[in-house]
Amino acid sequence: MITAAAVAGLPEIGAGDDLGELIAARLPSAPADGDVLVIAHKAISKAEGRVRRLAEVTPSPRAVALAAEQGGKDPRHVQVVLDETRELLRAERGVLVCVTHHGFVCANAGVDASNSPAGEPETLILLPRDPDASARALRARLNELTGVRHGVVVTDSFGRAWRHGQVDVAIGVAGVAPLQDWRGKTDSVGRELRATWIAVADQLAGAADLARGKDSREPAVVVRGLAQHVADDDGPGAQELLRPAAEDLFR
Amino acid sequence: MITAAAVAGLPEIGAGDDLGELIAARLPSAPADGDVLVIAHKAISKAEGRVRRLAEVTPSPRAVALAAEQGGKDPRHVQVVLDETRELLRAERGVLVCVTHHGFVCANAGVDASNSPAGEPETLILLPRDPDASARALRARLNELTGVRHGVVVTDSFGRAWRHGQVDVAIGVAGVAPLQDWRGKTDSVGRELRATWIAVADQLAGAADLARGKDSREPAVVVRGLAQHVADDDGPGAQELLRPAAEDLFR
Repeated sequence: MITAAAVAGLPEIGAGDDLGELIAARLPSAPADGDVLVIAHKAISKAEGRVRRLAEVTPSPRAVALAAEQGGKDPRHVQVVLDETRELLRAERGVLVCVTHHGFVCANAGVDASNSPAGEPETLILLPRDPDASARALRARLNELTGVRHGVVVTDSFGRAWRHGQVDVAIGVAGVAPLQDWRGKTDSVGRELRATWIAVADQLAGAADLARGKDSREPAVVVRGLAQHVADDDGPGAQELLRPAAEDLFR
Repeated sequence: MITAAAVAGLPEIGAGDDLGELIAARLPSAPADGDVLVIAHKAISKAEGRVRRLAEVTPSPRAVALAAEQGGKDPRHVQVVLDETRELLRAERGVLVCVTHHGFVCANAGVDASNSPAGEPETLILLPRDPDASARALRARLNELTGVRHGVVVTDSFGRAWRHGQVDVAIGVAGVAPLQDWRGKTDSVGRELRATWIAVADQLAGAADLARGKDSREPAVVVRGLAQHVADDDGPGAQELLRPAAEDLFR
């Protein structure tokens, strides 16, 4: 059995906050070896100061043109998206589908205005600069404070090709195997499982999202019962989940 | 808090089996209003007889050509995939990305050889003909046998554009809201959440998959703690999760 329980009562996060300490003081139950702390990236981005004030952004001619083309977006917002973008895959129907500098493919390069700090309506939240490094740092701090081994998954909500709606996926991972590879192993009747390569970290992200309300301040969720996926090593991180462009049939 | 617990001890499923009865007799705990039964489609496909014997398939010239082009696949297997396919989106590097007759976009139209009935190595498992109808029927039977209101989600493991690995997604839904729409609502600081349209049923599918082992016979998982997503009505089903081709930027 697995359980997912939100960390209740976290304060609004600001730059420089010690997230590990804030979370460790509010765990929903006594920590256990192999617990996975799943956290929405916005809390981490705020703690790391990965925010930009719209008033301080000067849009380039490209941002101004794109903003007009895509239904009257704020050109400054578009400029911030472009600043976070390595490659623009699509700009259609008001949607900018971007490859971020990390290699994630998502709308608006993960730049979002919602859940910005109170009283700062003109602030955009960016993805962490290196979400795997953020996950490793949070993991080290949590392990230090609780004395037990955790996994950490940093998440964002991504849309998908072909399907409506968004699901949370892993953008940073530490101490959890992002992918479980059953390829070449056999199933319950001895037959080879040929296409079974499970994105465990992404399923963890989605499971955790079910345990919180989007309108409550519950970025952090503890998932228990998956200690078999948690290791001493930090592991390859969410970078392992990225399909290289050369192998991708949909770019 | 949410929990996900596998239904242990199910026998190998065969055509005509009463899945609802088999599951109701083995629930991991006393059923509660709002429990969601998440089940891998293979169990349903087998109960519905949605299997094909390779020996009975005659490949068309198109299947023979495709099989050779794509690295020496079995032309009969390719024929079965084509029979389940409305539109072939990509045939590259040994991968057939198909739009199924239901409208799902996935590899090999969901046709799979793994976990076929013991002693029948040449059998392929298809997706249910109408997975939403399968979900509704299983729901009605479970509710009847347990006396409490369930939701049902039928799943398959799909690969994704841009990311490695597979996650379980919903291909049939009854009694659960597939999408939760927060668009136009406000967040914890009163700001509009503009891009928050959560594919609850897909996250349920992924969460349930974490609770079972791929090499054990545990197609069914009970997820508890999401009664707010379970309704009296069967609802729109997984069809609601399909993005129409005309709105899709990646076909």
